Amino acid sequence: MNKLYVVGIGPGNYEQMTIEAYEALKDCDIIVGYTVYVELVKEHFSDKEFLTTPMTKEVERCELAFEKASQGNTTAMICSGDAGVYGMSGLILEIGQKYENVEVNIISGVTAAMSGAGVLGAPLIHDFAVISLSDLLTPMEKIEKRLECAAMADFVICLYNPSSRKRSDYLRKACDIVLQHASKETVCGYVQNIGREGEHAVVLTLEQLRDSTVDMFTTVFIGNSQTKNINGKMVTPRGYKNV
Amino acid sequence: MNKLYVVGIGPGNYEQMTIEAYEALKDCDIIVGYTVYVELVKEHFSDKEFLTTPMTKEVERCELAFEKASQGNTTAMICSGDAGVYGMSGLILEIGQKYENVEVNIISGVTAAMSGAGVLGAPLIHDFAVISLSDLLTPMEKIEKRLECAAMADFVICLYNPSSRKRSDYLRKACDIVLQHASKETVCGYVQNIGREGEHAVVLTLEQLRDSTVDMFTTVFIGNSQTKNINGKMVTPRGYKNV
Repeated sequence: MNKLYVVGIGPGNYEQMTIEAYEALKDCDIIVGYTVYVELVKEHFSDKEFLTTPMTKEVERCELAFEKASQGNTTAMICSGDAGVYGMSGLILEIGQKYENVEVNIISGVTAAMSGAGVLGAPLIHDFAVISLSDLLTPMEKIEKRLECAAMADFVICLYNPSSRKRSDYLRKACDIVLQHASKETVCGYVQNIGREGEHAVVLTLEQLRDSTVDMFTTVFIGNSQTKNINGKMVTPRGYKNV
Repeated sequence: MNKLYVVGIGPGNYEQMTIEAYEALKDCDIIVGYTVYVELVKEHFSDKEFLTTPMTKEVERCELAFEKASQGNTTAMICSGDAGVYGMSGLILEIGQKYENVEVNIISGVTAAMSGAGVLGAPLIHDFAVISLSDLLTPMEKIEKRLECAAMADFVICLYNPSSRKRSDYLRKACDIVLQHASKETVCGYVQNIGREGEHAVVLTLEQLRDSTVDMFTTVFIGNSQTKNINGKMVTPRGYKNV
C-alpha cells in the first residue's frame, strides 16, 4: 500500500519534533508543505525531494501529496505544530476518499498552545480554549461568540493567528470582548517565533495586551481568574481548591 | 546551576516523545514521576535512578524533585502528555520559588488531545475547548458551566478524566449538558490507551456516547456542528465557509 504521512513537525526547532515524526520523514521519498515549514526541516532531510505550495493553496497541496503517494512515492505532508490543530490532517482525510490506494498515517506534534505555554511558564495547566482569530473561513460573529463564551466560563484562552496586515485590530477587539467578563489585571502572555530564531516572550496584563501589537507568528495566552505572574512566568493553578 | 527538567513524555509510546525530551532524559541522573509514567520510560533509560510517588502526592513529588536537583543531581520530573496540560509544570514553578539554586526547564510534549485526535482522524482542526471532568480540585458547577459555554459556542470539546470509580456517571451528565445545545447526531469519538498496549478508538454519535462506559485512561472528543464521520474517521472541517 502507498503511504502518505501527515506530520506535525512541532514549533520549528528540529529537536521539538517527535521521534516518530523524524522516523517518518526519514522513511519518505517526497516531503510536501507550505514553503516556510519546508525551510525549517530541509537541512535535516537533505536527501529528500521537497515540493511546496504557497499559503491558501491547501487543497492543491493535499492533491499534490496524494498524486505523488499514489504513484508509489512514500510521501509526507508536513504541518507546523500538530497536524490536527488548524493543520492539514482534516483536509487530507476529506480528499483521501478519492485515493483508495493510499494509506494515510497521521503523526501528532507539539502545537503552539503547548510549546508557547512552555516558554511562558505554565499558563494552561487547567481547562482551556483554543481560538483562531482568522476570519478567512469562519464568520466573525462565530469567533466573537466563542471569545465571549470562553471568557464567561473562565477558560484560559489561547489565540492563534492573532493578527495579520488585514486584521491589525482583531487582538484589541478580542481583548475588549474578554474584558466584559474578566478583570483588566488578568495575567496574559504572548510568544513570538516559538522554537525559532527570535523567540520572544512577554507576560503582561489583559489591559496591556489590548494595546499591544503582535504579528502573525505570535501565539497569545489570556489567563483565567486564577492565573498568576510568578517572577515573570505565567502560571495557572491546577484548580480552584487549596492544595 | 542545578537543572530540573519538567518533561512531557507524550502519550506513552516512546516514539511519541520529542527529540528534546529524549535528550533531556538522557542528560539526567534522576527521573521522578508518577509510578505509571515511570514504567513507560524505564526500559529506554535503564542507567538512571527512578523515584516515584503515588497519585495525589503531587506536591511531595515536586519537592522530592527539587531536593534532588538542589543537591546537584540533574533531575527530570516526567508527566504524561504535555508538562503544561493538567501536568506538573505549574506546581513546579510555584514550589520553585523556594529553590533559588535550581534552574527549571520545561519541555513540551504531545498531549492526549493531539495524540487522541490523530488516532480518531482529525476531530479538532478548528477551535476547541479542553475540559477535565475531575472535580477533585474544581467545583462541579464550574465544570458544568464550561461544558455549557463550550457547547453554546460550538467548540469541539475534548474531555480529559471522563470517568473514575467515584464518578462513573460524569460522562453521561456532561453529554446531557452538551445535548441541550447540540444535536444527538453530533459526531463524537473516544480513544482508550493512546499510544499504549490496548489502544482502541470508537467513533459514535453524541447520543451513543451518552450511554457509553469509558475508563480513566480514555480521552473523549465531542464534535462541533460541522464534524463528520468519513469512513469511520472523525473529521472537523477547517471552518464554516465552502473551500
